Amino acid sequence: MPSPNITPRGPERRRSQAANTEIGERFRAIRAATESLAAPLSTEDCALQSMPDASPVKWHLAHTSWFFETFVLAPHLHGYTAFDPAFRMLFNSYYNGVGDKHPRPERGLISRPSLSDVQSYRTHVDANVDRLFSESLPLPVAALIELGLQHEQQHQELILTDVKHLLSRNPLKPTYRSRWPLQQVKPQRVVWHAFAGGLATIGHRGTGFAFDNEGPAHEVFVARFDLASRPVTHGEFAAFIEDGGYQRPELWLSLGWEAVQARGWQAPLYWERREHGWQTFTLHGMADIDAHTPVCHVSFFEADAYARWAGGRLPTEFEWEFAVRDVALAGNFLESGALHPMPLVGEVPSQRPLQMFGDVWEWTRSDYAPYPGFRPTKGAVGEYNGKFMCSQYVLRGGSCATPAAHVRATYRNFFPPDARWQFSGLRLARNPQ
Amino acid sequence: MPSPNITPRGPERRRSQAANTEIGERFRAIRAATESLAAPLSTEDCALQSMPDASPVKWHLAHTSWFFETFVLAPHLHGYTAFDPAFRMLFNSYYNGVGDKHPRPERGLISRPSLSDVQSYRTHVDANVDRLFSESLPLPVAALIELGLQHEQQHQELILTDVKHLLSRNPLKPTYRSRWPLQQVKPQRVVWHAFAGGLATIGHRGTGFAFDNEGPAHEVFVARFDLASRPVTHGEFAAFIEDGGYQRPELWLSLGWEAVQARGWQAPLYWERREHGWQTFTLHGMADIDAHTPVCHVSFFEADAYARWAGGRLPTEFEWEFAVRDVALAGNFLESGALHPMPLVGEVPSQRPLQMFGDVWEWTRSDYAPYPGFRPTKGAVGEYNGKFMCSQYVLRGGSCATPAAHVRATYRNFFPPDARWQFSGLRLARNPQ
Amino acid sequence: MPSPNITPRGPERRRSQAANTEIGERFRAIRAATESLAAPLSTEDCALQSMPDASPVKWHLAHTSWFFETFVLAPHLHGYTAFDPAFRMLFNSYYNGVGDKHPRPERGLISRPSLSDVQSYRTHVDANVDRLFSESLPLPVAALIELGLQHEQQHQELILTDVKHLLSRNPLKPTYRSRWPLQQVKPQRVVWHAFAGGLATIGHRGTGFAFDNEGPAHEVFVARFDLASRPVTHGEFAAFIEDGGYQRPELWLSLGWEAVQARGWQAPLYWERREHGWQTFTLHGMADIDAHTPVCHVSFFEADAYARWAGGRLPTEFEWEFAVRDVALAGNFLESGALHPMPLVGEVPSQRPLQMFGDVWEWTRSDYAPYPGFRPTKGAVGEYNGKFMCSQYVLRGGSCATPAAHVRATYRNFFPPDARWQFSGLRLARNPQ
Amino acid sequence: MPSPNITPRGPERRRSQAANTEIGERFRAIRAATESLAAPLSTEDCALQSMPDASPVKWHLAHTSWFFETFVLAPHLHGYTAFDPAFRMLFNSYYNGVGDKHPRPERGLISRPSLSDVQSYRTHVDANVDRLFSESLPLPVAALIELGLQHEQQHQELILTDVKHLLSRNPLKPTYRSRWPLQQVKPQRVVWHAFAGGLATIGHRGTGFAFDNEGPAHEVFVARFDLASRPVTHGEFAAFIEDGGYQRPELWLSLGWEAVQARGWQAPLYWERREHGWQTFTLHGMADIDAHTPVCHVSFFEADAYARWAGGRLPTEFEWEFAVRDVALAGNFLESGALHPMPLVGEVPSQRPLQMFGDVWEWTRSDYAPYPGFRPTKGAVGEYNGKFMCSQYVLRGGSCATPAAHVRATYRNFFPPDARWQFSGLRLARNPQ
Repeated sequence: MPSPNITPRGPERRRSQAANTEIGERFRAIRAATESLAAPLSTEDCALQSMPDASPVKWHLAHTSWFFETFVLAPHLHGYTAFDPAFRMLFNSYYNGVGDKHPRPERGLISRPSLSDVQSYRTHVDANVDRLFSESLPLPVAALIELGLQHEQQHQELILTDVKHLLSRNPLKPTYRSRWPLQQVKPQRVVWHAFAGGLATIGHRGTGFAFDNEGPAHEVFVARFDLASRPVTHGEFAAFIEDGGYQRPELWLSLGWEAVQARGWQAPLYWERREHGWQTFTLHGMADIDAHTPVCHVSFFEADAYARWAGGRLPTEFEWEFAVRDVALAGNFLESGALHPMPLVGEVPSQRPLQMFGDVWEWTRSDYAPYPGFRPTKGAVGEYNGKFMCSQYVLRGGSCATPAAHVRATYRNFFPPDARWQFSGLRLARNPQ
Repeated sequence: MPSPNITPRGPERRRSQAANTEIGERFRAIRAATESLAAPLSTEDCALQSMPDASPVKWHLAHTSWFFETFVLAPHLHGYTAFDPAFRMLFNSYYNGVGDKHPRPERGLISRPSLSDVQSYRTHVDANVDRLFSESLPLPVAALIELGLQHEQQHQELILTDVKHLLSRNPLKPTYRSRWPLQQVKPQRVVWHAFAGGLATIGHRGTGFAFDNEGPAHEVFVARFDLASRPVTHGEFAAFIEDGGYQRPELWLSLGWEAVQARGWQAPLYWERREHGWQTFTLHGMADIDAHTPVCHVSFFEADAYARWAGGRLPTEFEWEFAVRDVALAGNFLESGALHPMPLVGEVPSQRPLQMFGDVWEWTRSDYAPYPGFRPTKGAVGEYNGKFMCSQYVLRGGSCATPAAHVRATYRNFFPPDARWQFSGLRLARNPQ
Repeated sequence: MPSPNITPRGPERRRSQAANTEIGERFRAIRAATESLAAPLSTEDCALQSMPDASPVKWHLAHTSWFFETFVLAPHLHGYTAFDPAFRMLFNSYYNGVGDKHPRPERGLISRPSLSDVQSYRTHVDANVDRLFSESLPLPVAALIELGLQHEQQHQELILTDVKHLLSRNPLKPTYRSRWPLQQVKPQRVVWHAFAGGLATIGHRGTGFAFDNEGPAHEVFVARFDLASRPVTHGEFAAFIEDGGYQRPELWLSLGWEAVQARGWQAPLYWERREHGWQTFTLHGMADIDAHTPVCHVSFFEADAYARWAGGRLPTEFEWEFAVRDVALAGNFLESGALHPMPLVGEVPSQRPLQMFGDVWEWTRSDYAPYPGFRPTKGAVGEYNGKFMCSQYVLRGGSCATPAAHVRATYRNFFPPDARWQFSGLRLARNPQ
Repeated sequence: MPSPNITPRGPERRRSQAANTEIGERFRAIRAATESLAAPLSTEDCALQSMPDASPVKWHLAHTSWFFETFVLAPHLHGYTAFDPAFRMLFNSYYNGVGDKHPRPERGLISRPSLSDVQSYRTHVDANVDRLFSESLPLPVAALIELGLQHEQQHQELILTDVKHLLSRNPLKPTYRSRWPLQQVKPQRVVWHAFAGGLATIGHRGTGFAFDNEGPAHEVFVARFDLASRPVTHGEFAAFIEDGGYQRPELWLSLGWEAVQARGWQAPLYWERREHGWQTFTLHGMADIDAHTPVCHVSFFEADAYARWAGGRLPTEFEWEFAVRDVALAGNFLESGALHPMPLVGEVPSQRPLQMFGDVWEWTRSDYAPYPGFRPTKGAVGEYNGKFMCSQYVLRGGSCATPAAHVRATYRNFFPPDARWQFSGLRLARNPQ
């Protein structure tokens, strides 16, 4: 279950007025950004749920507000009146400490409250949070607001991936936005970057925000390894398919092969074979795959099988974090408006691996496990920090649907090994020869 | 699969202009009635699908128009232009002869076309059918229009039962219409009517419309039997529950007992136990059960178990039709606006069984089988007349959600034995003592 | 669930000593016949369960003894000591009145008691029943013994069909008996027998044994009909397959077509396509199908689809019983040792339909429903006479695995419409032209 | 999927005649040990399969022979004649490189070959392997034989756990061996051992046999940690249950809580509540739990929930291997005949953790992943060395059903997080305070 970890970290003890103003501005900007993502969608687009893993956009709009209402306004704004007491249960995702919750697979059965009710709910919550900014903001409350904003950014990405899935199930193949971002992409060869490894500090340090699963920082011994200069492309993945990749059990993990057979996988999610070649469903409609952009919508199983076929392997999350240490945090994020992986920018060979951030989340070989010394925090906000740490694998680097300000070198995303509806791709690693 | 049988019957050979006018008026009235059923619903209410058996209201609005477009306009209106060619597949229910169809369980994944697009589709179809009425209407075309109207009436009932199911799944328990129709209902005792039986003609005769499954008329030998003067009530069914009805395997058919255990049935669909007694979800919201109105939302299994508990049995469809021969076609139908079973009207004892029509569909002991000599008709309209004749049981008499003009003494409704979301109840029969 | 109905019928009031002797001899003969069916099987053949519908042979051997112990010895033999009290639960099939029962799908998990323990159990039961014969046998006890013998004969057939299914799942395709019974079968054309119909008495009359579901005898009006002179053959069914029978939805009941798609049916159970043609698994191993013998191991769905393809229909059980009234009770039964449908014996045209008894059970179009006036009998023996009367269809006439003395013109066998592991075939009926 | 890794490791280059003799003796001893495990079982005990995860004992007897036939005799014994060519497919477990294989869930459908046939198969294989020992044994062949013996030892443990599961499903609760090993066990308190951690070499080194998943040896940085002196006991786990452990979602991983709810877990596998307290099914029949012996038959989910409840956590496999470095390889293994976890032997406090080997496999927090530099070996024997490295967790130390000579400090066992039928328990770790 891809779910945000929500405990604030970092040693902040005081907030200046400037900080107060800054977070107020960020609050308004991020809340508005969420709404702008829903703007191209119809009332019905926002109401439907295409599978248990996905949620209706209306639910995302409400749940992100519920978060502020439940963890910020109800306990910390004197005299706050809930918009609708029933929402406490209706828009709870998985916090048992908050009380009952509506079952996830039934989020698509809720025709009421309407989208316009939910928009009023957002307005109500925004107005009340705004009242908090007018006064001196206690540090723990500021931390909870920061957490709510990080949480909302995660749901911005989910709005895009969930609505992409919904639209893909419609035989009319409607578009979210009609602006195809690609033109004449040129091939870029892969080179291998060698890393010497050694004892390295992994995990979040410093005073900025991070989720609790990014810490504590700790020592990890990383052996020598090579890492590819860029992610695997659509064209390379098509070659794997042409070579019988989906028909050869020896390339797959045992559970992966079961998934291939049970679900009839023959290509990444959204790919459809046409006479002239592969097409894929995008937020801009059906489009020919572009051979030179990073492949996405592959599961961990497919990423692992591809790597085996290509003679490499997936990197561990420690190798990935080791390799990204001197890489600038820039790339094709949500704000570019492309909403699709883009061609490589930068000269090859470069001194460092390219496209580490943005475009596609990169599957690693690491299961999502607690770092040594990880301790769950108290209360419902942090109730279940570690409860998803089982049978999921870590992805790193953010995607073309991730807000730029949301990602870090230490950021750990995680999904079950069969999940495909995120913008998930891969980059090869190998053992030094 | 509750699905209309759609082959016209009857010896009509010519149509007068008056008949032309009459069917035109009926066309407009019935189409408008459908829309009036959707009027209290929001865009989101119309878009969602709560289970594979049910369909979104938007789909019902479109599919009934698709029927006229596909079987009337496309073949019979010269120069007709389809509203949208993609709708041919999108709103096909199960006619393989028409081509591909969108899978039933995925009707709730279609956010587009929007409800307003579908309303335009209806307008387009209506305007074009109207053009037909201005000219001399060939008899086969008139028969197809009649069929389309009967078909639309069936979907009117489904709109109500499907939206009831959808709203019931919402924890907020929203209402379709806020007007509770019941007041101080008085008990009415049951008496038994004795029928001598004998060789009887069963099935539709004469020139009026009937579905093909109502014919051919044929001889059936009916033995002597007794039939109860009214349906089983909510209060009687509550007594069955209190007596452990859902815990005693000896009362149930083997498959029924499996359903009780596998699905955790403890009462009819929509019932919820409160401290002060049972409530049930209605189209007017949650309400206390009224002990003296006919019980509804029971499966064939529950009806059969109740009958065994009560020392009776379900009537066969032949007994039911035998008993109703001299009963006037009147009762609590859709047009009453009650949308819920109502108390018995009429003196007991009367000469004939009461409440045979309207209020609740009455389960019979008869499986849905072809009458002797039944022959499927040709073409897609009648492509599958008999394909649902397996593992379903016949219900008779119409319900409070059925248009009054739609039912007949020979009308055969049918559902699988575990279906509960229709307004289905029962009336006891017994062998003479 | 194909389960014997076990209530004795008929007006027997007294038993002569001769009758006592006669039933003693029958008891020994039938019990020995059961054991002779198990004789070719290994301990392991007797222990395994190949699907929830089937039971291990060991279970059949024990359960038939349990029946005598529970319903005859425990209540009626003074001082009887149970062989093992645990068997009361372990070998109860579905009699809730007797107490707990071991779940049917777990019969194959019982390695102990061993086969040899079960054989001792049989000996113990036989010896004790034998003691009853030495004294004057009260009529109700004689009736229970008769019932136990009829019950045991039903399980003789199930031993064969269940072990056939088990052996078929073994890739080595082992044989039950290596004696292929067929040689150079000659084609026999079909002719149609016309029946005038009319008011007919259906169901068991007279003093002989019958199961309670065969009564009461009652009047049924049967319209004119034609019936084929012999069952559909393997060759005719192969022609249906060649003509795309399993690929054409218009030939199938809706539920049948779902079964075809969900289970990948492409031929009757046990058929395997070879380069030179079809083979089928038999109790004598894999064998080429013989075009001129009755097809078997088809479901109701396949029988119905074939009939539609062939321009006919399945007969009702009333038509079948009407047609068989003057037909002698003879045919290819268990005792022939063929254990496979055999070619037609007799001249065509004959005055009456041929092969009505034996060879294959013939699917009818009639659902398994209670006859008018059917009343469940009291006590655990008859606890659930009617509980299987739902969503099953009636088969008539017995098969090559049925003991000859077990079948009657009024005998009603029944299975769900998707069951295929019995020797089930079909005979065409049609409406007069 | 608990499946042996079968690639030989280690730098052996030559074999002396003494080594030849030694392996011949070991071969005979290990093969005989397998048969002695089957000796108390009836033919039927050996034929049945109680769930897809388990296999019939007969299958284990055959498959271990198949391994020698397929990988040793067929390629390396000149002129070898297969016992039965059909066995190549029938007793293949999961080696796609060998060809087709019989589906695992259908191993219980194979009544033939019989147990006595399989015993002949074993004799045939043994005699032929014996011929190899009379000649000079090439090193690679000796390595394959060694591998086959290690493989056979793994199946010895599975024979016991699989037959335990089978017998537990029989309501008669039969015993494998009637010799209850426990008497008056005294409580032993837990103490914590502090480990300083640091950079450590993990994985197999040296010349002895190891599976490929134990290598390559590599550096891991282990932080400071504490480890409990002994495993968690039955009594401690009972206290977790009494404290509502199975009713409190906050104690569980999200997937674990789903398993608790979906499967109705309320205690470890085999536990049954009696009036006087808990009983558990053992290979000696039902027995009261002994509070002071290690708990077993818990899943990873239960182990993790218990640890959270107890304020600790599971150790990583690296911590476990770090802690066991100076611990002697001794404990309660298969050879003790106890076949059940035994009380602690040794004084507390001791210098080192006790009961690290034997009694119960200890769940670790580590997912089963390839060690850095792990490379699959060539050919069918090593075809899929890593294919199970997904969604499984590592267990360490061996159990009371493991042959003593089979375990090592570096040995990695692995099972999915919901597996409970192995002798799996846990030991607590914690972060230093």
